[in-house]
Amino acid sequence: MTVRVGVIGGGQLARMMIAPAVELGLDLRVLAEDEGMSAQLAATAVGDYRDLETVKAFVRDVDVVTFDHEHVPQEVLRALVADGVQVHPGPDALQYAQDKLVMRAKLAELGVPQPDWAAVHDASELQAFIADHGGRAVVKTPRGGYDGKGVRVVRAGLEASDWFADLPEGEALLVEEMVSFTRELAQQIARRPSGDTISYPVVETVQRGGVCAEVIAPAPNSTRRLVEVAEQIGRTIAEGVGVTGMLAVELFETDDERILVNELAMRPHNSGHWSQDGAVTGQFEQHLRAVADLPLGRTEPLQGWTVMVNILGGPQQGSIADRFAPAMSAHPEAKIHTYGKAPRPGRKVGHVNVSGDDLDDVVYTARGAAAHFD
Amino acid sequence: MTVRVGVIGGGQLARMMIAPAVELGLDLRVLAEDEGMSAQLAATAVGDYRDLETVKAFVRDVDVVTFDHEHVPQEVLRALVADGVQVHPGPDALQYAQDKLVMRAKLAELGVPQPDWAAVHDASELQAFIADHGGRAVVKTPRGGYDGKGVRVVRAGLEASDWFADLPEGEALLVEEMVSFTRELAQQIARRPSGDTISYPVVETVQRGGVCAEVIAPAPNSTRRLVEVAEQIGRTIAEGVGVTGMLAVELFETDDERILVNELAMRPHNSGHWSQDGAVTGQFEQHLRAVADLPLGRTEPLQGWTVMVNILGGPQQGSIADRFAPAMSAHPEAKIHTYGKAPRPGRKVGHVNVSGDDLDDVVYTARGAAAHFD
Repeated sequence: MTVRVGVIGGGQLARMMIAPAVELGLDLRVLAEDEGMSAQLAATAVGDYRDLETVKAFVRDVDVVTFDHEHVPQEVLRALVADGVQVHPGPDALQYAQDKLVMRAKLAELGVPQPDWAAVHDASELQAFIADHGGRAVVKTPRGGYDGKGVRVVRAGLEASDWFADLPEGEALLVEEMVSFTRELAQQIARRPSGDTISYPVVETVQRGGVCAEVIAPAPNSTRRLVEVAEQIGRTIAEGVGVTGMLAVELFETDDERILVNELAMRPHNSGHWSQDGAVTGQFEQHLRAVADLPLGRTEPLQGWTVMVNILGGPQQGSIADRFAPAMSAHPEAKIHTYGKAPRPGRKVGHVNVSGDDLDDVVYTARGAAAHFD
Repeated sequence: MTVRVGVIGGGQLARMMIAPAVELGLDLRVLAEDEGMSAQLAATAVGDYRDLETVKAFVRDVDVVTFDHEHVPQEVLRALVADGVQVHPGPDALQYAQDKLVMRAKLAELGVPQPDWAAVHDASELQAFIADHGGRAVVKTPRGGYDGKGVRVVRAGLEASDWFADLPEGEALLVEEMVSFTRELAQQIARRPSGDTISYPVVETVQRGGVCAEVIAPAPNSTRRLVEVAEQIGRTIAEGVGVTGMLAVELFETDDERILVNELAMRPHNSGHWSQDGAVTGQFEQHLRAVADLPLGRTEPLQGWTVMVNILGGPQQGSIADRFAPAMSAHPEAKIHTYGKAPRPGRKVGHVNVSGDDLDDVVYTARGAAAHFD
């Protein structure tokens, strides 16, 4: 029978599941937050994913539930599981992507390398951590951050007073050492409910202003050790927390060749968009295969290199569609992906993938094509 | 502004336009023949494409009209053009894909190599042609044939008596010499309304029972001359008849190294399905770019070889979906595409693409994956 996959959230990640779902003959159904969302074409319901009755009504006609984002409350997820609904990733796994303090504690238990960290309840605890870590630290709200929001570099405990003031009684902020990294990497792995996994090659990610700007796949200058360590970290986490679907592990590579875990995402991730055009199986197809418990697809690159450059909304930007002709004309090898979103400044509205065997050429072309949308 | 592309016909070719339309941010709207067609997800209307009022109502909210098939009557197409609707390909071009006698006469005028042919009005004219061509010939109904229907090999004029009896007054059948070919090839080219074109590499096609079974891209053992002649034939026809969108030219390669035109199709074509996974720009994306008058994409293969094998409905076949897990498990490198159709015997219900650098491996894997659906 045709598998009906329900996606909670109507953003670009749900949108980019549409193409592989059509080809594989999966029946994709989306619970969107609003009318006119990115994944509108597959939206079968509109409503609030925090409302249990809304979500229960949506999942009634699907065989498996997955996500465009990690914000569905644990109470809602656990109520679905109690009703016998297949939820991938499930609440036990997803909590580690929802709460960074819970994540840090679990990674420590799994023995996965990560920055020094602590749970801090007030400015004096934060000040003590800063003093122990060279006079600087990174404070994070454990929940709800994304794209650099909820993250602050501080030199004094008082610089997070506003966040401490907003904390519910008994809760804490996460503080991490400021890692001196040479570059950022990301490791993706897919895991089926049956336990089968398959890893993607580790990639290099370039952030600007806390937002992913560019990804190079595979990561250049990767030693065999780096590839193996990154793959092992991804697998240890995927199996240790019981992820189902795609897992992305954001990593720091340090001066002294350590690999430390920065963040986790349990869904297709910006660092994996390159695979849509650059790998045998793109991450959106792989996520669908994993959550539908179908055998996973091969992950080898199709060409030597693929570079992904994000298209961000800009102040002078009119309609994205009006930029297509010049971008396509100058760069007929570029694969342009759009999210159907109004281009507000700084908002991710699309991305470009370019593949080839000469990295300099590929980087040049990908940046050139994306620049047409600035 | 977002371009709204209206597709007349809801079959698998319209379905396979959905994925690139979503990524490019084109608004795809389909006039389907019935509920539950292959392209149902994008169907915005259901109705009879032969009915002018139905088609006029459908095109009111689109910027350009294109097709899933070539069966829309000339009267309907010309009425749309008279109303100022952008129709790609237009009726002047499409007539050559709709009527094989008109096509043969045009190719003769363009000096394109083709089999000997004639328009025959009765059994005695057919008998005379057979006698002049070694005692055998191929008779075709000029209109409405597909996948081997409307084609008959005959040794006597009387063997087409039923077709002559059904002919309207003054009309003729097409008769062609029976070409002794070593293999069949196909050449695809995209052409924009602006006149820009881009060619795909010539491919080898293998037919079984008049239906495309397998495609190898690029065609193995292609001499430089073959590649150039095929490309030139495609370009001559595309420009000579003013195609807009994708053109497929089916070719015979003969014992004595001649290349002769067999059939034309003015839309994405089974011989081009390999390009979805095997070329920089797949034929469905290219068709959309061409009909929306956007710059065309590069057509180079991503890997050395891509082999496409069709999945046909079979008598023992249950749901296609039930065959996925074993096929994917045995062949994790295979790209499976399904059409959302009930698997009636002999009906095309999907296809498999496999790419790689060793042709024997690629053929073996593609056939192996497709065999799981037999």
